Formats: sequence, structure tokens, C-alpha cells
Amino acid sequence: MTDFFAGIDPVRYGGPEADGDLAFRHYDPEEVVLGKPLKDHLRFAAAYWHSFAWEGGDPFGGQTFLRPWHPQDDMGRAKIKADAAFEMFRILGVPFFCFHDADVRPEGATFAESRDNLFEIVDYFGPKMEETGVKLLWGTANLFSHRRWMSGAATNPDPDIFAYAAATVKACMEATHRLGGQNYVLWGGREGYETLLNTDMGRERRQAGRFLQMVCDHADRIGFDGTILIEPKPQEPTKHQYDYDVATVYGFLKDFGLETRVKVNIEQGHAILAGHSFEHELALARELGILGSIDMNRNDYQSGWDTDQFPNNVPEVTLAYYEILRAGGFTTGGTNFDAKLRRQSLDPVDLIAAHVGGMDTCAAGLKAAARMLEDGRLEAARAERYAGWESAEAKAMLDGDLAGAAARVEAGGVEPEPRSGRQERLENLVNRYL
Amino acid sequence: MTDFFAGIDPVRYGGPEADGDLAFRHYDPEEVVLGKPLKDHLRFAAAYWHSFAWEGGDPFGGQTFLRPWHPQDDMGRAKIKADAAFEMFRILGVPFFCFHDADVRPEGATFAESRDNLFEIVDYFGPKMEETGVKLLWGTANLFSHRRWMSGAATNPDPDIFAYAAATVKACMEATHRLGGQNYVLWGGREGYETLLNTDMGRERRQAGRFLQMVCDHADRIGFDGTILIEPKPQEPTKHQYDYDVATVYGFLKDFGLETRVKVNIEQGHAILAGHSFEHELALARELGILGSIDMNRNDYQSGWDTDQFPNNVPEVTLAYYEILRAGGFTTGGTNFDAKLRRQSLDPVDLIAAHVGGMDTCAAGLKAAARMLEDGRLEAARAERYAGWESAEAKAMLDGDLAGAAARVEAGGVEPEPRSGRQERLENLVNRYL
Amino acid sequence: MTDFFAGIDPVRYGGPEADGDLAFRHYDPEEVVLGKPLKDHLRFAAAYWHSFAWEGGDPFGGQTFLRPWHPQDDMGRAKIKADAAFEMFRILGVPFFCFHDADVRPEGATFAESRDNLFEIVDYFGPKMEETGVKLLWGTANLFSHRRWMSGAATNPDPDIFAYAAATVKACMEATHRLGGQNYVLWGGREGYETLLNTDMGRERRQAGRFLQMVCDHADRIGFDGTILIEPKPQEPTKHQYDYDVATVYGFLKDFGLETRVKVNIEQGHAILAGHSFEHELALARELGILGSIDMNRNDYQSGWDTDQFPNNVPEVTLAYYEILRAGGFTTGGTNFDAKLRRQSLDPVDLIAAHVGGMDTCAAGLKAAARMLEDGRLEAARAERYAGWESAEAKAMLDGDLAGAAARVEAGGVEPEPRSGRQERLENLVNRYL
Amino acid sequence: MTDFFAGIDPVRYGGPEADGDLAFRHYDPEEVVLGKPLKDHLRFAAAYWHSFAWEGGDPFGGQTFLRPWHPQDDMGRAKIKADAAFEMFRILGVPFFCFHDADVRPEGATFAESRDNLFEIVDYFGPKMEETGVKLLWGTANLFSHRRWMSGAATNPDPDIFAYAAATVKACMEATHRLGGQNYVLWGGREGYETLLNTDMGRERRQAGRFLQMVCDHADRIGFDGTILIEPKPQEPTKHQYDYDVATVYGFLKDFGLETRVKVNIEQGHAILAGHSFEHELALARELGILGSIDMNRNDYQSGWDTDQFPNNVPEVTLAYYEILRAGGFTTGGTNFDAKLRRQSLDPVDLIAAHVGGMDTCAAGLKAAARMLEDGRLEAARAERYAGWESAEAKAMLDGDLAGAAARVEAGGVEPEPRSGRQERLENLVNRYL
Repeated sequence: MTDFFAGIDPVRYGGPEADGDLAFRHYDPEEVVLGKPLKDHLRFAAAYWHSFAWEGGDPFGGQTFLRPWHPQDDMGRAKIKADAAFEMFRILGVPFFCFHDADVRPEGATFAESRDNLFEIVDYFGPKMEETGVKLLWGTANLFSHRRWMSGAATNPDPDIFAYAAATVKACMEATHRLGGQNYVLWGGREGYETLLNTDMGRERRQAGRFLQMVCDHADRIGFDGTILIEPKPQEPTKHQYDYDVATVYGFLKDFGLETRVKVNIEQGHAILAGHSFEHELALARELGILGSIDMNRNDYQSGWDTDQFPNNVPEVTLAYYEILRAGGFTTGGTNFDAKLRRQSLDPVDLIAAHVGGMDTCAAGLKAAARMLEDGRLEAARAERYAGWESAEAKAMLDGDLAGAAARVEAGGVEPEPRSGRQERLENLVNRYL
Repeated sequence: MTDFFAGIDPVRYGGPEADGDLAFRHYDPEEVVLGKPLKDHLRFAAAYWHSFAWEGGDPFGGQTFLRPWHPQDDMGRAKIKADAAFEMFRILGVPFFCFHDADVRPEGATFAESRDNLFEIVDYFGPKMEETGVKLLWGTANLFSHRRWMSGAATNPDPDIFAYAAATVKACMEATHRLGGQNYVLWGGREGYETLLNTDMGRERRQAGRFLQMVCDHADRIGFDGTILIEPKPQEPTKHQYDYDVATVYGFLKDFGLETRVKVNIEQGHAILAGHSFEHELALARELGILGSIDMNRNDYQSGWDTDQFPNNVPEVTLAYYEILRAGGFTTGGTNFDAKLRRQSLDPVDLIAAHVGGMDTCAAGLKAAARMLEDGRLEAARAERYAGWESAEAKAMLDGDLAGAAARVEAGGVEPEPRSGRQERLENLVNRYL
Repeated sequence: MTDFFAGIDPVRYGGPEADGDLAFRHYDPEEVVLGKPLKDHLRFAAAYWHSFAWEGGDPFGGQTFLRPWHPQDDMGRAKIKADAAFEMFRILGVPFFCFHDADVRPEGATFAESRDNLFEIVDYFGPKMEETGVKLLWGTANLFSHRRWMSGAATNPDPDIFAYAAATVKACMEATHRLGGQNYVLWGGREGYETLLNTDMGRERRQAGRFLQMVCDHADRIGFDGTILIEPKPQEPTKHQYDYDVATVYGFLKDFGLETRVKVNIEQGHAILAGHSFEHELALARELGILGSIDMNRNDYQSGWDTDQFPNNVPEVTLAYYEILRAGGFTTGGTNFDAKLRRQSLDPVDLIAAHVGGMDTCAAGLKAAARMLEDGRLEAARAERYAGWESAEAKAMLDGDLAGAAARVEAGGVEPEPRSGRQERLENLVNRYL
Repeated sequence: MTDFFAGIDPVRYGGPEADGDLAFRHYDPEEVVLGKPLKDHLRFAAAYWHSFAWEGGDPFGGQTFLRPWHPQDDMGRAKIKADAAFEMFRILGVPFFCFHDADVRPEGATFAESRDNLFEIVDYFGPKMEETGVKLLWGTANLFSHRRWMSGAATNPDPDIFAYAAATVKACMEATHRLGGQNYVLWGGREGYETLLNTDMGRERRQAGRFLQMVCDHADRIGFDGTILIEPKPQEPTKHQYDYDVATVYGFLKDFGLETRVKVNIEQGHAILAGHSFEHELALARELGILGSIDMNRNDYQSGWDTDQFPNNVPEVTLAYYEILRAGGFTTGGTNFDAKLRRQSLDPVDLIAAHVGGMDTCAAGLKAAARMLEDGRLEAARAERYAGWESAEAKAMLDGDLAGAAARVEAGGVEPEPRSGRQERLENLVNRYL
């Protein structure tokens, strides 16, 4: 193995008073909550890209991290990177990981070479997964970094690039399938536009719909029975991205008859960029029946771009997990840390400590959410607010017509008096579980 | 008639060099563009609420306008207000107007009294419309200002308030129908939530869906064959509004089987608040087949709330009308000025001059858009960009499966080279038509 | 007394496990932290305007609250309002309150009548303050609600309105002085512009500067030795407000020679609207020596206007109080709840419960901040990061010239290696104190 | 010379009807406006970085441009780049250019090597400038891209990096001086913080102040009499940047006694990110006496990051130049295009066409602004609005004290009636000059 994390022992649960950067204070994987160990609720996954492929660059500066696997253009170094990655998974005790093709293998000179590189790494992953017990939460294809994708993948004006995207997703899905991945994710980073002036939005939308249908059919064909997930994001890198938010993706799925086949992978930072709270997107996906998995991170509320920071605000995370628990928890999905170090956090220990803090924040949040659900007062208050709708008369009205609904009012018998929404009392109630 | 606008003559077209605040420089209603007079392209409507019902208040201050029809709690003054309104319509030469029930009549002590007040005003409008030739673009119900609506109308936790909303919309639709309105609009200002904590989003969404179905059925029943329109807005007054944007409304309509029955009324300012450009929302609605009508105004880009200013940037407005012209123009829809004076603009002449500037901005924009469409270079560039998709091979690929699309790439024959998107050249091209 | 809060007993500290909406779980006023009782650290004040003068309206709807003191145009009802207000202060046990003239008295037909109304209420307050022990944290003048202020007060184009502002502030400062107020606040809600086109920004800035100098001189003259505070806000109600943020106010004070005479009253929501975190504004004010007092509330991160909600996120509030404690805590300043109920929270008990939750959030935050400061690890890490600057050589370099600083580098002896900023480790450290 | 722009002739003025991408329709350099040729009003400069050093990457993708001078790590290719750059300057006929050290030379292994590379390129520029007549508007140092600057330059916690910054600026200023640069610019891209937790804001601010004083002193010492400019930006790359906006920079300059020595270089996109309009920042800088130069570009209003697009909205640009003309126009400053191609605009001709469109937009805007100023109606309306302040009584009041100002109101003689702000009429007036 690599000595990149030399001297760092596996992180253990040490209780709330545990000292140091490298102990869990809230995440005891075996702690049973609502009848299930925490690890099975949270289903943590580490993301290959931010932790191992990103080099610390931003729009105004180049790499800050100097890693033993840089530059990332060589298969030997790709394996050193894999060694370090699995070392981190082991240290953290995360049960899952996630990756794009481009994270794990160098780009080849041709498609075939890139694909061969990918499968060589897949073969390299196999024994490591066996040995560590770390499983694949999901795989995905990077259809946004290489210059060929600059104008989109499935939505590209050039059918050859659509074909290239098809071949790439086919390879990545096969890789995911081979590694027993539980989901396959599509993030359409360049599926959108920079300017409406050169864009045929209707045509591109139809291309995207067909592509998704083809991907789903292919999954069936090869026997991949994991969940297909779309990850909404409103913009960045493009000016406008077609998978704007949960509601937009839902309309798109309905249009292409995929609303029961495809679910969403919701990211906190993307929700914020779209003008929503994370819990809004989760609750909406639950109500629409398309809640699949989450990308956990946090977006700076004062920055207008995707900052992908590690979560650290327990009250906020609590509200997110509360919506997930109300949906019955994850099935194939999980909590993927789509979070990256700040580019000034140069040390290997920063990578471990950042995940430890994030995992603890999530564990504390989930436990608070579970207490809130078990206690039942919040749900009781909600139910009480709508109790009027449980009457037979109200139900009949909803099944009737406008004139029927209007009749009582027209007859003069209805002068409704508004009742307090009790928002502050409910907010205070939530704070009791933290 | 009132002497509120005493001394102000009907506004006439005076050509680009016309002087003074009260002449059109771009809007000649009879000028034929793309085979149709401008007035039939633009179909201008004045909005009763901003110009006649709003008193100049904002969250930090009360009324600034002192109008002869204040306070607005009396039927006599409601008629003085109507007189002034039709006087303005006549001075501006707008072919249409729009109103909410609450704009035109005082609230009564009971539902019946409010409804009777409404119909009395409807009767008062009739001869005025006859005399001036001004028609009703659309009517609507104000389901957001009175305290009874504070927690929603159709989505209210109290079924009595749902009933009250039904009765109110029934009355407003009947009023609209009597006056020959060409559309009926629903804006769900309070259909959303202030906090998820007290909200059953799934239930409220179903209530909203049923309500809309009931409204459509009722329109059929009474023989109202105008278009039913939903007006998207992401938030304000609520934290989150269910009719967030065009894409969200589309998914909602699909869910309730109304996507061919209901269209959208898109407002510039609401598009901006949702993180979109106006032209994006228009183009998307066109592609989804639900483009109905527009609320023209402008939102301050540096303010985070709905500023409802009169449009004055011709290049921006041009891009909006270009998308409308590409859709074939308005059918029952039109250009409603959902714009209000700044609260410091106290003089009656401000009301006229603001509309004159807005109408001129729209006319200049529409004419530039028409030139751009007639010239055809922009559309030619767009078509050329996607030309590759016109080949039989490309079409077959789109109808085929993933493996088929991938095969050519896997065989090594495809190494696509990206082509310039030419954004700046297209932007410069657009500037030529202005 | 009024029976508005009938049946609500004074709120007591019940410990973390206390049940119900009306017990403090974190705020024990007598608990000693860093050598001082909590009540003297936090110096809570209730705000008259949001809790007693605001009627529940927003830009899309009218009043929702129906209070015994409505309508607010009568001296008798103003006294009923005062009775309820002091009843709330007593129930909450807040040591302070704050008010604008317009909150407490009806507007008169003339300036003299308004002023007489104010002083009559001041006289009514006196015995109540005596009896309850509640003191005045600050008084202020409402120079933004009445239509006369629509184009500004001190910055108005009309010198008569400047004069009216002078007379109004003079009266309010005298009222504040009589009541033993510890600060006097100026919030320039209309001191800014709606459009640059009609604005002489340089002239208005000079008017504002002179006005502030006149106010300070007058305070000296009448022997008011409280602190004069300016409250920054970037916009709303105006498009641009001159007192944009702390940095802007500082430059303004420097220009008029008032940077040691005037301090700032910083509001969380205003910081957010200006694109800053609350802790940023606090830290900057501390470093500039102008930190005076705070308006505690929270702004919805997804809404672009001032939502003035009660604080409820302890981790965020902790970071704010940490900066205040680093400044040595409040002197004449305090924690004013510039927070209002949601307009759906109709019940009197909502008013009490909202404050209880807010006070508890602040107490929990302050106690966590105190632990963090006492523990010292965060400050040690900060000091260690800058330790290089403590060397004599580094200090000499800073006192020297550019050529001197450059010389070592030019000589080839300096190839600096960046060090980890440790952001995630520090964020995790902070979470330990919560 | 290079053949990068082979086949592209120098761009000429062809009048409003000129066809094709490569003719000016508004910019006739010799056209006299307000007594001065356009070229001397606009003082256009091309920016080396965006057009020649940026390779088309963004946070989600790598380079898209493939230029003959890539990779940029070699002196030979740096000269090919310089050849292409001067070729573009010649084709466009821009009188000026601007550069950072890192744009023009490869980074060396040591400081000395980097500096020598810079001076070798400076020597290479000399004859090219002679031959083409293109002058240097300003030079600057890139203190943000290399990993050594990740935690700041002058504000770094490490004094060695401060020293490195001093040596770098010293070299860049000398290079600027040798080339006859008319200004020297400082943009503190990393002078700010990612997290307050590890930041000593007061200390960093003092370091920045001392650094700026040292830079000014050094300019005097070497006889550089160009203007020293600071470029404000609120954030990005950092979470918070110290030179947030014009008002913040002003307070900073006052604090270090540099408000008459240093001016600002204002960028449209940075103004937008800070929540201001461009014209606001320009007007404020003018009123504070620190308006120096501009970085012309445009920021997408729906994107929360710095998009640096070429300007193309004439009405907006008109308002900006109007403020500049009101300041008397540029002295040493000018209009630098801090604008980059969209990363999909791959062709060399895109580079030329984008600048042509931008220059035309600026020329059209400046000419409209000049007409507006010459016509005088806008200024007359502004003066009329404040006319009341011209009376002796009003002036005396402003020089007097609060009691004096209040006296007339207290005596009952003043009941001011607000007057219309006429915003819409003024906006319409502006539209007449376009």
C-alpha cells in the first residue's frame, strides 16, 4: 500500500467527548436507531473525484495539492491513486465509494484506449473491494471535462458526440455492473446551454430524453438492476442546465415515460444554487416518488457558485435526514460526500479530518431526525393542521366540482377564520431534538 | 368622466424624433410587420391593479399616492376609479385591460356582498368597453391579499377556505366570461409555504391539481372557451411557491392531465426571480407547447424581490419577442403591463408616460425581432449547427439503442472534433437588428 | 393591565429538558459565563415595532393580526399597546426595549401634535419602566414610513424635509434621553436612491454627513452621553442605500471625522442582504473599532428580501457571539430582537414563544462561544498561523520599503512553501463546543 | 509574424449598415465627439490574459482552445504568443494593451528566472510597440494563480510570501515603467479569506495597507508617475475579498492616507457581483474623487460568478459612459476589455469578432452618452430637483445646527409636500438618445 496516509489509524467512535481531529464523536456505525444500525441508515460513500482527482485548481489558480499520483496521465500512477483511495476508505470505515471513469484512469489517445484503461482499473479495484469490504454505491461517466463535451454530450449538435457519449456510458455502466454498483448516476454537466442564440432547446431536450430511454433499456438488457439516477443542477458549468431541479427533472421524466424508472440524486449545493433548501428538494422528490440518493455537501450561502464544502451545520442536516426518514430511508441510495477540501487544506490528514467531521455531522443530524420522528409531536402538529380535510364532507368536496364546492359559500354559511401557522413554535420544537 | 388626467390628450405616434413625454416614437399601432399590424402582434393590456388599486405602499412605508378614489372601500369611489381607468385606456389606445376582483370592487362584509359588488362593477364596465372598444384580455381572482388566504387558497389546510376559493374563482370566471375575456388567469400567490415544518406538500399539491381540474371543467360547463393560464413565480409572498417556473408548472400539468388544456402566463420579473432569463422561460414554454401570454415588466437585477418596473431595455425585450414570434405570435394571449410606477412617481402624467415608454420599448423590440426573423441569418446559423442530425444515419441512431449508437465509436471510427459555438458572433449579429 | 397575554406566566429557566413552548432551556439570566451573568452578556431587548406596531401585512396582502390596539391612530389605543408591550417585556424578563416614535404614538395632523403624542407616551412609559425595571436600550426616529420621507430624510432634495428630519430626530433623541436610553440609533431606510438618474449622489452624501455631525453635536449639547449608532443595510426599501455595510459606513464616518464618535448597529439580515456573513460584519466592525450593538434576527438564505425571522440556528449564532466576545462584549450595546412573527402566527402565545426560542438560541450560542474562547485552541491555531510575523525581521520588513522587502527574494534565498489552512479541522473544532 | 490570424484584415469603420463580422458599425476612431476623437475618449485596451493566456478551462473542464503557443511553459512559444497578440492589436486598431507578468512569460524555476523571463519579453515587446504604435495602458502582477499565493500575497500569514509579493510587484512595476505604462494596477485576488476561523482580519488589513504604501513610495522612487489603481471585487476566488467594492476601497485608502494617491479600476462584472450596478460604482468613485479606469465586460445576471463576457447591451453601456463623461472622461485610464471568449468559441476569428462587437457597443454607448450630456435635459432635471438647496436659507441650515434646522418645523411653518421623482419619465428620456 501507499504511505500517503502513513501514521493515520482507522478512525473509531470515541463518544461525544473524544478529543483530537481523528475520532468520531457522533458516528458509531453499529448504534441502532429506529431499528437499524447507523451505517445502514447513512450508507456513507466517499467520492473519488474531489478527494483524489481534483488537484486544487480554481478559475484563478492552478493546482495546490502535490500528490504522489500527479500528473494523472499514467496507469502506474492511477494505481497509486487507487491504493491511496482505498486506504482512505479503510481508515474512514465508509461502506461505499463512487467514481467517474475520468477519476480513475488516464484519458487514452483513442476511445478504445480510454475504455481499456478503465477496465484495467476496474480489475484493480476488484480485489481491493473484496479485501476492504468497501462496495460501489454508484458509478458514472464524466461527460463534461474533455473538450469534446464542451457543447454537451447527449444534447450535442454533433451526432458523433452523442455516439461517443453512448459508448462512454455503455462502458461506465458495464464497469459499474461488474463492480456490483447499486446505482448508476447521470449528471449532465454540459447538457444545457451557454446562449439560447445557438441552441435548439426542443431538439436537445428530445435528444436527452431518447438518450435516457436508451440508457435505461441498456441497463435492462445487461441485467443491471441498480437504480438509474439523475442529478439535478441549475447551472455551472453552463449558463442553464436542463436538469435544473427536482421539479424540472420530474416533468422531463413524465414526458419520456420514465418517472417510475429513474430517480434523483439530490445535492445540497445544487439545491441552494437553484434557489431551494435541501430539505425542499428532498421532500418534493419524496412526494413525487423519485427520491433516490443524496450528494451531501454544503454550499456557501454568500457565494454564487458550487463550493462543495463538507457539511458542518447539524441543524440543517437534521432537516434533510428528517425528510429522508419520512420517505422510509434509503434503499439503494446513500450519503455520498460530494465535498472537497478547500484548496488551502494541503495535508493528507485534512482529507481524513474533513470526512470525519462530515460523517459526524450527518450522524448527529440523522439521530436528531430520528428522535424527532419517534417523538411524533411534529407530525402530530402537521396532521392536526390538516384535520379538517379528513371529514367526509371535505373529501366529497375534493372529489366534486367547482359549483359544488362553491355552493356552501354562496349560501352564506362559510366565513372561515384563519388559524395560527405556529411556525416559530415548530422551529423551537425542532431545536429540542438537537 | 373624471378629470384625473385633465389636459392629457390621447397619445399618438409621432415618429422616432417626436418630442415630449407623451408621444409614441416606435409604436404605430397600424404599422404592418410580418403581415400584421403592430397592435395585433403586441395586443397590449393595461393592468388595473398596479395603476389603480396599488396606493404606493411598500414593506417600509404606507401610501404615497393620493387618488380621488381613495380610500377604496366604497362603491361610489370604485366607479370613479373605473372612470379614471378607462380614461387611461383611451388615452393610451391599449386594446385590452386585465383585472382581479379585488382591484375593481370594495370587499364586502360577506361573500355575497363582495360578489354583488363585483357584478355591479362588471355592469358598469360593459358600456365603457363598448364605448371605448377596449376589451378584456383576462380576468382573475385575488386569492392572496385578504387575511383568509394567508395560508393558501386551493392548498389551504382548511377545506372551508378551499370552498371560499372555489366560490371566488367561480364568480371571477363568470365575470370574465360576461365581459368577453379571452383568457382566465390563476396566480397562486399564497399557494406555497412559509415553512416545510407545518406543510404537507403532497397533499397541498393534490389539492391544487384537483382545484385546477375543477376550474377547467367549470369553464367548459359555462361555455367559457378562453384560455386558462397559470402564472409561474418562485417565491414572494411565500418562501416557496408551487408554480415555481415554467418547467415546474409543466410537470404539474402533466401529473394532472392538463398539459394540453392549460397554458402559462409568463412574467419577466418572475423569470428573473427563478434564476432564468425571460427568453428562457418563453422558449421553454414554446417547446413544451404551453406558451399563452406574457406579463411584461422588468425586475431590477440587483434587487431580490419583485420590482415590477416598466420595461425600458430594447435589446432585452427584443430577445423576448423573438421567442414569441418563433412560436407564431400570440393567439388569445397578449402583452399585459404588470408594471407599476415607482412610489415616488406621484403625478397622473407619470402613469401615462410610464406606459408610453413601455409600449415604445415593446414595439421597438418586436420590430427588431421581426427584422431578425425575416432576415433569417440567426435561424440559418442555428440550423447549420445541428445539420449533422439531419442525416439518415443520425436519425436512425436516435431511434436505435445504446449499443447501436456506441458501436461506431467502439469500432474506432469516431473522433469528433468540437466546432466553435460562435456565441459572440451571434450576439453581434443580434445587435445589428436593433 | 391588558389581558392580551392572559394566562401566560413569566417565562422561567427550566433546564435543557424543560418541556412546553414557554420555558427557557438555555437562558438562565443569572448563569455566570466568563465572569459575568448571561443577562449582562446578552443584554436582550425587545423591539416595539415588529411585535406591536406591525400588523402582518406584506407586499401582497394586508393585515393578518387583529390586536386590541388596532387601528393605531388613537392615543387611547396607543396606551393599550404600551400596556401589552410592557406585559410582554415582563413575561420574557428582557432587561431592555427599543422603539421608533412612530411605533408608540399615532401620527398627528401636525409636527407639534406628533411630538406631543410622543412625549405623552414617554410619560406613560416612565412609571412602567420604573415598575418593571425594563430599561431603554435605544430610541430612534422613523424617517421612512410616512410619505413625506419617500425621497429620503437627511438626503432629501427638499430642504424642508431635511428640516423636518432634524426636528424629528431632535424630539426622538430628547425622548430617548428622558427615558435614560443607552444608545441612539439612525437607520436611513430612505437615505439612498431608486434611480441614479434623478439623484445627486455627492450632494446627498454631504447632506447625510452634515446631518450626522449635527446629530452628534446636539447629543453633546443636551448631555446625552449614550452611543450614537448607524445601522447598515444595502437596499430595501430603496434600490441602493448609502449605509450599505460596515465597510461603507466606516469610509463615510472617516470622511466626516466621526469614526471615533459613531458606532454601528449590525443586523444579521442586513449583513446577508449585503453579501456578507453576520460574523464578517461583526469582526470587521471590531477591527475598525466601531462595533456597537446588534439587531439579532435571521434572513432566509433563499429569499432576496429582509425576512426578519427569529434566530434559531445555534451554530450560526455561536460564530456571531464569538466575534462579540473577542471584542470584549457589549458596553452600551445589546442584543435587540429585530425579528417578527411570520404573518400566519396569529396567537399572542406565538409572540412569547418566538422570543423564548430566540433568547434560548442566543444563550446557547453565547455559551458555546464562551467555551470556545476559554478553551483557547481556536485562538492558538490562529496565532500559530501568523507566528512568522512575530520575528523582528518580519516586523522590520513591514516597517521598511518595497526594495528592502524584495531584496531577500531577489537574492534567491526565499522559496516559500505554502502551509495548510486547516479550514475543515477548524470547522470541526468549532463543532465541539456546541 | 504568426499566421494565426491569417486572412483577417485590419478592421475598418464601415458605417451602421456595414455587413459581416469584421467591420465597425459604430466605432470610427477619428469621429469627434464633445471635441475629442472617439479613440481618445474610449482609450481601448486589449487584455493579454483572457485572449492569449487563458486556455478555455472552467471548474468542470480543461482547455478547449488549441493555440500554437500551447503549452505555455517555454520562452519560444511565449514569443509566438506575443506575435499573435500584437497581430490582434494591429487588426483591431486598439491603442493600448494590458498584461500580468504571468500572461507573457513562462514561470521560472526560481524568482530570478521568472523575472529574467519577464524582462526578456519586455525587450521583445519594445520594438513591437514601436512598430504598431500600441501603448501600454497598464501592467500588473499576477499574485493569485501560483500555489504560493493560495493564502494571499501582501496579506499572507507567511512574511516570506509578503516578501515574494514585494519582489514581484517591484519587477512588474519596473517592466511597466520601462514600457511607458500609464497606470499600474493591483488586483488582490487572494487578498481576502476562505474562512474567518483561520484569519486575523485586522492584521491582514494592516499588511495590505503597508504594502500599498510601500508600492506607492516605490513608484515615486523610480519616477513612475502613472496612476496606481486598485481593482475592487467582492469575492471569487476567495469567499471574501478585502477590496469588496468602491466604498470599501475608499475607507481603506482613507485609513492609510492614500485616498488622493490611489484610484480605482472598476469592472462591470465585479460591480454586479458586489450587488451594484456598474454606473453606481462609477458614479460613487467620481464623487469620491477616485475614478481611474475601467475593465469593461459584462456579467451574466443569472450566474453567481464572474463570467467576463464581452459587453453587448448598448443601453447599459451608455449609462456607464455617461458617469465617466460627467467626471470629465479618462485621464490616464481607459477602457480595458477584461472579457473572454466563451470556451466554445474556438476560432481565431471569434477573438477578433468579439472585440469588434465590444468596441462597437462601447462606441455606440459613449456617443449616446455624449448626446445626452450635450442635450442637457437630464442634468437640468436633476438640478431642478435639488433647486431648493440653492437658497441662502437652505445653505445656512446645512451649515447650522440641529436645533436651528428644527426650529422652523417646531414653529409650525413647514408641512412639506413630496414631489414626483419622475423616474419613468427620465428613463424614457434616456431612451431617446440611444
